[in-house]
Amino acid sequence: MTQPSHLIWTDVERIRAQAPLIHNITNFVVMNNTANALLALGASPAMVHAPDEVEEFVSISSALVVNIGTLDATFVAGMKLAMRQAKALGKPIVFDPVGVGATTFRNKVSEELLTLAAPDIIRGNASEIMALAGLNAQTKGVDSLYGSEAAVEAARRLSSVWGSVVVISGETDYIIHGDRTAKVANGHPLMTKVTGMGCTATAITGAFSAVNNNYFQAATHAMAVMGIAGELAVAKNPAPGSLQVNFLDTLYRLTEAQFTDTLKLTQS
Amino acid sequence: MTQPSHLIWTDVERIRAQAPLIHNITNFVVMNNTANALLALGASPAMVHAPDEVEEFVSISSALVVNIGTLDATFVAGMKLAMRQAKALGKPIVFDPVGVGATTFRNKVSEELLTLAAPDIIRGNASEIMALAGLNAQTKGVDSLYGSEAAVEAARRLSSVWGSVVVISGETDYIIHGDRTAKVANGHPLMTKVTGMGCTATAITGAFSAVNNNYFQAATHAMAVMGIAGELAVAKNPAPGSLQVNFLDTLYRLTEAQFTDTLKLTQS
Amino acid sequence: MTQPSHLIWTDVERIRAQAPLIHNITNFVVMNNTANALLALGASPAMVHAPDEVEEFVSISSALVVNIGTLDATFVAGMKLAMRQAKALGKPIVFDPVGVGATTFRNKVSEELLTLAAPDIIRGNASEIMALAGLNAQTKGVDSLYGSEAAVEAARRLSSVWGSVVVISGETDYIIHGDRTAKVANGHPLMTKVTGMGCTATAITGAFSAVNNNYFQAATHAMAVMGIAGELAVAKNPAPGSLQVNFLDTLYRLTEAQFTDTLKLTQS
Repeated sequence: MTQPSHLIWTDVERIRAQAPLIHNITNFVVMNNTANALLALGASPAMVHAPDEVEEFVSISSALVVNIGTLDATFVAGMKLAMRQAKALGKPIVFDPVGVGATTFRNKVSEELLTLAAPDIIRGNASEIMALAGLNAQTKGVDSLYGSEAAVEAARRLSSVWGSVVVISGETDYIIHGDRTAKVANGHPLMTKVTGMGCTATAITGAFSAVNNNYFQAATHAMAVMGIAGELAVAKNPAPGSLQVNFLDTLYRLTEAQFTDTLKLTQS
Repeated sequence: MTQPSHLIWTDVERIRAQAPLIHNITNFVVMNNTANALLALGASPAMVHAPDEVEEFVSISSALVVNIGTLDATFVAGMKLAMRQAKALGKPIVFDPVGVGATTFRNKVSEELLTLAAPDIIRGNASEIMALAGLNAQTKGVDSLYGSEAAVEAARRLSSVWGSVVVISGETDYIIHGDRTAKVANGHPLMTKVTGMGCTATAITGAFSAVNNNYFQAATHAMAVMGIAGELAVAKNPAPGSLQVNFLDTLYRLTEAQFTDTLKLTQS
Repeated sequence: MTQPSHLIWTDVERIRAQAPLIHNITNFVVMNNTANALLALGASPAMVHAPDEVEEFVSISSALVVNIGTLDATFVAGMKLAMRQAKALGKPIVFDPVGVGATTFRNKVSEELLTLAAPDIIRGNASEIMALAGLNAQTKGVDSLYGSEAAVEAARRLSSVWGSVVVISGETDYIIHGDRTAKVANGHPLMTKVTGMGCTATAITGAFSAVNNNYFQAATHAMAVMGIAGELAVAKNPAPGSLQVNFLDTLYRLTEAQFTDTLKLTQS
């Protein structure tokens, strides 16, 4: 497994060298964490949502990350303008349908955004991916009630309809594009006890998509780095407050050797 | 004092087992912390404020927490719809009148919200409880200028008018319902040097109200757990940055033995 | 260099003794951090942005801090009312033009705010100060592409036009007022890997301006305290997650001896 590991590490080094500007329209809960995760990884984050400026900001950014966690009318207006602009300029779009399936509003907004500008990468938990694919998935707020494997078929359907790479986060992460599948078995269950770890995965996927236009690879690499940094951070102290701190420290200091030794990736 | 301690711990175990979904409409400053505190306690938090979806979200939640810390017109509209819906569905409502008394707007909005849907539990510091009861309390932004005992009469008046359990946070926390009073003497003054510790107390009160419909007990139990987790966290390192991290770790790992040994509760 | 150090420390002691109420209209990313930094320093922070209440809140506050990091129409309306009111009441205004130069909207809003109520202190990185002075500065989102020295002339122009003290943050911080210059060489490059450290510098500048109406001194003292707390925090553990925690702990515990030993200040 040396080769995929080295391929991933090359992307990490590109991010550290280029510090790509990642434009985030994301939720209030995680803005601070996701900005810090992007900084720790080596990217340059900005949170910009006003309809008055998102189009101009997209044009200077290397990737757009859209996350509907605490959406409202103003943010949705900004998301639409930004996604359309990113599409027009060929900038990668990463979409996180937080809590889709929980309300009609989230379903409607997600459908509108997908139709307006199909994302290059979609990342969610199993419940969200199933709901986004139009399945009658049970959701519990922003948490999933399913293992990630249960959403594989939904992910494949989404990928086929929108052409997107689809990531299902869970104990094993699935990265799906057409009939291709990668699985990352890194990470730790304690990560679900820190708010916004999924949103952080989405944000750093933005950074990988900015340096690697093979979006199947970009998404896979992001999930591998996310899982490994989380896993190593939990090993330092398995408690949620410390995990948040140690996650950033670990991501910032991550070495290729640590990474290679920890990676659990299979592809088909 | 073995019995109340065991009663409280039963609620903690219920939260850990059931992971109730807590719907928060809260302020920008504390969204991350309060979500993390609810997760560390074992609940499932969601922050949802858009008027387009709050009613639907209330209907799938186990409790509603409303906090006016950084209120504006959009958030107030969401609060009203959500509180009316929670009332209609009989879901517990916990209300935190952050900074009431500091501006006419906060006074007016608080009055409107109480009239629309009397909360099951109101939690504030002494200044806020006095201001909410219509007393001419001095406030200093979001900080209290009084000890909690000064607000006992105001709390009793509020409880009598709205039927709510009223919590006054302070060096000693008072929990008041009609002529009943509980006092929790846990906690530590350093907790006032971390922003949003009061908001966190309110949020976890939401979790207790979701598993115990005796709201006097729910509020008392929440204040006890809050105070004890804070006190034990300060003991690890009495500095505000570390306190935030250690608070979450402590809350997550809290055991019945630790809890029972530390509890300082009196009731009348 | 004993004298300036003692002068600065007197301001720290005033903040700790008076706990001035600092009214912040700031961005979503940093609200939590900047509130915690103000608390750790000894001030009393409040985040209040609604047009319905900012004027009244300014009137009970000791200083106003305005930061355009995640501006939108609602926040801009609040900023305008608050700044006009602060000006009318003679309360110090500290302005942080986050990301100015990146979009036409930020340029336009900044120009409007300056014209409406010239700030007493403006703090930004070199790119922002150059853009605000109307120079054709390159920006990269919210990061600077220049060393702080490159913006000295722009700062002097801004100071001359608006009468403001202008702070350029960077490896060396420049504090400029008319033809006076102070330089603070404290701090550490790792501070740029934690989101909102610049915004934190601006927020604590608000606290110093509340206790020292010599705003050239207030700004200089704030930058010295910021740089020293950051530098000492990095020394504990040079990683970004830990830095955030250690920064607050260090700021809270800072002693005059530590401060005096570390200060690198030159004035002309």
